[in-house]
Amino acid sequence: MPELRKDPVLGRWIIIAKERGKRPTDFILEEEDTTGGFCPLCPGNENTTPHEVLVYGREYGEANSPGWKVRVVPNKYPALVIEGELNREGQGLYDKMNGIGAHEVIIESPNHNDAFPELSNEHTFLVFRAFQHRIKDLGCDDRFRYVLVFKNFGKAAGASLEHSHSQLVALPVLPRKIESELTGALTYYKFKERCIYCDIIRQELKQDVRVVCKNELFITITPFAPRTPFEMWILPINHSSAYHEQSDEQLMALAEIFSESLCRLDACIPNVPYNFVLHTEPLRSESLPHYHFHFEIVPKLTSIAGFEWGSGFYINPLAPEEAAAYLRESLERIS
Amino acid sequence: MPELRKDPVLGRWIIIAKERGKRPTDFILEEEDTTGGFCPLCPGNENTTPHEVLVYGREYGEANSPGWKVRVVPNKYPALVIEGELNREGQGLYDKMNGIGAHEVIIESPNHNDAFPELSNEHTFLVFRAFQHRIKDLGCDDRFRYVLVFKNFGKAAGASLEHSHSQLVALPVLPRKIESELTGALTYYKFKERCIYCDIIRQELKQDVRVVCKNELFITITPFAPRTPFEMWILPINHSSAYHEQSDEQLMALAEIFSESLCRLDACIPNVPYNFVLHTEPLRSESLPHYHFHFEIVPKLTSIAGFEWGSGFYINPLAPEEAAAYLRESLERIS
Repeated sequence: MPELRKDPVLGRWIIIAKERGKRPTDFILEEEDTTGGFCPLCPGNENTTPHEVLVYGREYGEANSPGWKVRVVPNKYPALVIEGELNREGQGLYDKMNGIGAHEVIIESPNHNDAFPELSNEHTFLVFRAFQHRIKDLGCDDRFRYVLVFKNFGKAAGASLEHSHSQLVALPVLPRKIESELTGALTYYKFKERCIYCDIIRQELKQDVRVVCKNELFITITPFAPRTPFEMWILPINHSSAYHEQSDEQLMALAEIFSESLCRLDACIPNVPYNFVLHTEPLRSESLPHYHFHFEIVPKLTSIAGFEWGSGFYINPLAPEEAAAYLRESLERIS
Repeated sequence: MPELRKDPVLGRWIIIAKERGKRPTDFILEEEDTTGGFCPLCPGNENTTPHEVLVYGREYGEANSPGWKVRVVPNKYPALVIEGELNREGQGLYDKMNGIGAHEVIIESPNHNDAFPELSNEHTFLVFRAFQHRIKDLGCDDRFRYVLVFKNFGKAAGASLEHSHSQLVALPVLPRKIESELTGALTYYKFKERCIYCDIIRQELKQDVRVVCKNELFITITPFAPRTPFEMWILPINHSSAYHEQSDEQLMALAEIFSESLCRLDACIPNVPYNFVLHTEPLRSESLPHYHFHFEIVPKLTSIAGFEWGSGFYINPLAPEEAAAYLRESLERIS
């Protein structure tokens, strides 16, 4: 059983997911070759993954058979396990609990070589609806407080499989980063009685130097204080704290801007590794006037070294205004 | 001039250190070959670095000539610059200031191939005294609030030069991580009227399952909630919030345990990349009853991907109790 442990000073939770029988040198980072060979996410290999929990596009045929467009399965090597009680426990001044949670893989396309930003908007829409569907479903489990949806693309960003996929982790604790955002946004709201993200969007639209692209419902910006070159945030223009409450029309607009933003990034730096993370309200939360759901896309370009670890702040060699200019021009340049 | 920018929600400061004339693809991570070739940190090449700000061991001879044991120079490619005013400025809801600070390199030995943990204790002592010396000196500059001392060892941990060195950055803001620690420790102190780190040391000595090694004045533990396999903290056993106030006797004991701890790590995983960071009180602080200076050593083993970025928490495949057992046995095993 994995364990959740809390740092007593920072309040940060970490997961101890013991891999048994390993020697110290087994923890060395290895360059895995993920190209070629057997792919457990391809159609025909459905029996090599745990049983699917959600599938879109298979009109006929049995569960765990081909014919699907998007397929969600539990992670075969989960960081947290779904069965059991939390059993919160103190150990002197330390706190821990059982590593209860869900860890799922969203297989974004049946085609091994499809790149996420190249999927049709209708197909990308299904991926975003699958996120929604799973968040709603996992939100019915009282043990969980948050569902973290993320994607690792490229080996440098942590992807261990080539076949296009994203992941989600349902957690019994609120991630520290989300908690900090909620606190920061609430402080601003108490002072101004306005959502800070709504204010950011207003200022970005007015200044128009960090806007990458927009449509009627969403906007992509390079944030004022980005951690890495080409970091992008995608936000709904109208206030909403709950990703899972977006309508189909909204999800379609999100799919469009998401693909466009990633295509712009790819046009600047072909095949760049990146992570994206959904930031949304906690499970079973009331609608929050101070919080605004959004996606953060962080390319993996500069390495994170001692300075960043120690200080929690980052050195970025590219101003977001310049990054936005590159991203704006990028598609025009190649077309 | 670099810029310091604050994330309006999180309060996190980042440095925009523009590198002029770069194209987007120039930001791609490259595998630099740092072996062989010209080394600007070797004796005889003193004229290729900025002028030294501190030197130990050169009894005769001019400044910036060979004959030194430890040499401190400004970083040739500094993330922050020393000359200028802070000029704090708002831009709508955003905050920024000039990227004023110091960025220095501590060259730990004249010998290109010396590994840090293999230096004699007397030599390592000089390195730790150089940290002290520079913190005190930079603390006289009212513009600075913190000096962050850190080391990147190995390419995967961000080292761009092979010659053994550490770095320091003097900052006009308090790093977010240190601020969080100060806040967490103060909350505990208000409740218990005891330093949380002192309590941690007491509990670790009693439980004796995460102690790696100790001497009369210092202790090395694997923390209860470590981010990575083999993460280690080195703390003074007696309460002290100020690294720069340690006596020579204390620094000597620190040099001893530091070398021993790194040798134990190296015996477990030969040549493993790592970062260490000094966590100490802010500049010109009064002695703090709730904070305890320490070093955190974080091996670079697992890659940080979307989950960790998004959540601010970590999946660690090795329990610290097992890591401590390996580290305890390691030197005995190879001797």
